[in-house]
Amino acid sequence: MHTTANSRGGGSPLDELDISSAPGQENPLSPVLTDRAGEEMDFSHGDVEAFPPIPGAFDRYQRAYADGRRFAYSRYRGHVEIREHVALHVGDFTGQRVDPATEIIVTPGTQGALFLALSSLVAPGDKVAIVAPDYFANSRIVAYLRAQPISVTLNYEDAASPAEIDLDSLESAFAAGAKVFVFSNPNNPTGVVYSAEQTRGIVALAAEHGAFVVVDQLYSRLIYGATEFTHLRSSGIGTDRCMTLLGPSKTESLSGFRVGVAVGAPEVIDRMEKLQALVSLRAAGYSQAVLKTWFAEPEGWLDERIQQHQLIRDDLLAIFAASGFAVRSPAGGSYMFPNLPQMSVSAEEFRTTLRVEHGITVTPGAEFGAGYEHSIRLNFSQQRDKAVEAVSALCGLATKLTR
Amino acid sequence: MHTTANSRGGGSPLDELDISSAPGQENPLSPVLTDRAGEEMDFSHGDVEAFPPIPGAFDRYQRAYADGRRFAYSRYRGHVEIREHVALHVGDFTGQRVDPATEIIVTPGTQGALFLALSSLVAPGDKVAIVAPDYFANSRIVAYLRAQPISVTLNYEDAASPAEIDLDSLESAFAAGAKVFVFSNPNNPTGVVYSAEQTRGIVALAAEHGAFVVVDQLYSRLIYGATEFTHLRSSGIGTDRCMTLLGPSKTESLSGFRVGVAVGAPEVIDRMEKLQALVSLRAAGYSQAVLKTWFAEPEGWLDERIQQHQLIRDDLLAIFAASGFAVRSPAGGSYMFPNLPQMSVSAEEFRTTLRVEHGITVTPGAEFGAGYEHSIRLNFSQQRDKAVEAVSALCGLATKLTR
Repeated sequence: MHTTANSRGGGSPLDELDISSAPGQENPLSPVLTDRAGEEMDFSHGDVEAFPPIPGAFDRYQRAYADGRRFAYSRYRGHVEIREHVALHVGDFTGQRVDPATEIIVTPGTQGALFLALSSLVAPGDKVAIVAPDYFANSRIVAYLRAQPISVTLNYEDAASPAEIDLDSLESAFAAGAKVFVFSNPNNPTGVVYSAEQTRGIVALAAEHGAFVVVDQLYSRLIYGATEFTHLRSSGIGTDRCMTLLGPSKTESLSGFRVGVAVGAPEVIDRMEKLQALVSLRAAGYSQAVLKTWFAEPEGWLDERIQQHQLIRDDLLAIFAASGFAVRSPAGGSYMFPNLPQMSVSAEEFRTTLRVEHGITVTPGAEFGAGYEHSIRLNFSQQRDKAVEAVSALCGLATKLTR
Repeated sequence: MHTTANSRGGGSPLDELDISSAPGQENPLSPVLTDRAGEEMDFSHGDVEAFPPIPGAFDRYQRAYADGRRFAYSRYRGHVEIREHVALHVGDFTGQRVDPATEIIVTPGTQGALFLALSSLVAPGDKVAIVAPDYFANSRIVAYLRAQPISVTLNYEDAASPAEIDLDSLESAFAAGAKVFVFSNPNNPTGVVYSAEQTRGIVALAAEHGAFVVVDQLYSRLIYGATEFTHLRSSGIGTDRCMTLLGPSKTESLSGFRVGVAVGAPEVIDRMEKLQALVSLRAAGYSQAVLKTWFAEPEGWLDERIQQHQLIRDDLLAIFAASGFAVRSPAGGSYMFPNLPQMSVSAEEFRTTLRVEHGITVTPGAEFGAGYEHSIRLNFSQQRDKAVEAVSALCGLATKLTR
């Protein structure tokens, strides 16, 4: 194409964006290889058959469809009764009341909430503090908005020490002019859960520098063992100074419905709704209804789900440990982020061989920031036996390729 | 909130955006008035119970949900088999083949397609030619992108003459530097369908000035009587020079599923997919499956739907004519855009009285451009008798308020 768009030079930030290795984006395998279908293992996202959606979610969808006049269309920020249900429960969950009229918006997935939040807070040329490693979209959205990311390091590789972000580097980012800080908790891809003390440190620095904080807590219901989870919005930060992103796509396996929420500062929620009016109008009217099952799961359902994930986590950690891979045990979420050993092939060649010869897909570490090329991310929300077999094969291949 | 966001001054274009009168956004009626629920008439969008979704659509959804491993996640541009189905049929429909691998993206509603297309084509400071009146989001997205809209007038008010956009003003817009032209066909809100000659005129000017054309053909399957519909993409414009937006939300009543498509220039589709990776990842995985029923409706289903809409259209036109309202007969789509008569109250007061006293909601003309304050838009995809009754009440009120 003879490009005339973006005619004023400079091009679009989209030109620089590479999504070819983003989760789910790998090119389809060749026809020969797709004969392996069913044997394949895709660690780039969870398996909704291994961990099915919340019981009753589909019934809610069906009833919403049948009641089309009420459910097909909603205000852009979401159906009133859905916002009331979610606000009540997210208020309880996070320890800080949520006003269903002014402090919540329902979005097409938590990704939608992240895009709307950052787009509503960040103008071209702004500086934004971002954790590394962290969810790949954070820095990409900042780049798309023609803003400037400032990296704040998360120290997680020494499994013997508590994982911590470097508060000095966060302070430097704020001192350099960052007015927005975005991070995920539990951290994607490492599974790090920030301590109460770390969270207080973040809040104190944000307050001192007048910064707004966006926290992606997508995995905050999947916390292992005795780990304590600290909600940013009830940690002394003003509720007008933060935005919390949540959704039922992961732990609750409702990803195929594409619904998420953001709760926080009313003024920012207003902007997010305006932008949603342009971007997609609303989360699908019928899909919103499944949120009625969220935080209303059967007794014991969530605990069992956490226990099942913990068993898989421990199985896989044992295999990695036996093979000499360095990997931190995730305290929350269903990701782990092992370092690859030194091999006779590049990390990219290793992943290609793993995929073509063993039908195993993993997400490259480089997706989570510069300098993580020798890590891979695995979503272990999978069938336990299949995951064990695949990680054994992965470790076997790596060992074979170790110098 | 003490705003620190957008700290570099200038504020966000979102601050200027008013969505309070956008379709579906009206504040809920007071508790007393909501006792009228059921008697209310909302002309701001169609009634999916009066015109139900394509038969079998929900079954497709249910099967996709049951086959979660295949359907929960897709490539950001959409499931392969869905793109193949839609590309084949949209190719037939528009008279120009669509490559399912490179020339189509599935989006969260046609709104999603519009946002992604314009965001992929327009940079800050660019000029964009926009028809007035036209879909309210066109100019709002351009403003959000910090670009400059240049208005091109659609002459539609003289019902005795063919409706035409002023090609001289389009040429002036291109001469002034507009490299993108966006318009809807059938036009929203007037129901004008552009003639083959008009379309050829647009194509010739775009070619001469190297402009890219985005056409929103959301209503292009709902065309009345002998009106001929001309598809832009088969009108001599290079398929790498245009983007056509389509979706099953209107005629086919699948709005509650939030799926739409864009077909066109591969390079722009690539950018749109990259942006979708940031905005919402993908149209809901299960929802995409309902597109298998699109362009595959039961024999005669679409014809009957068109006939039913034509009957309602004609009923309402007769009532407006009898009351002395000026309104052009829509040649396509389910909108009409009457001018209000001169009344003793403002257009806004009229709409408020209509809503509070009669439970009738219409969309203000100002949503479609400056200078249309004395028009209102009605979506007549409604129960026929209810629509007739409501338009009679509307005309009665206007007559009572006429000086």
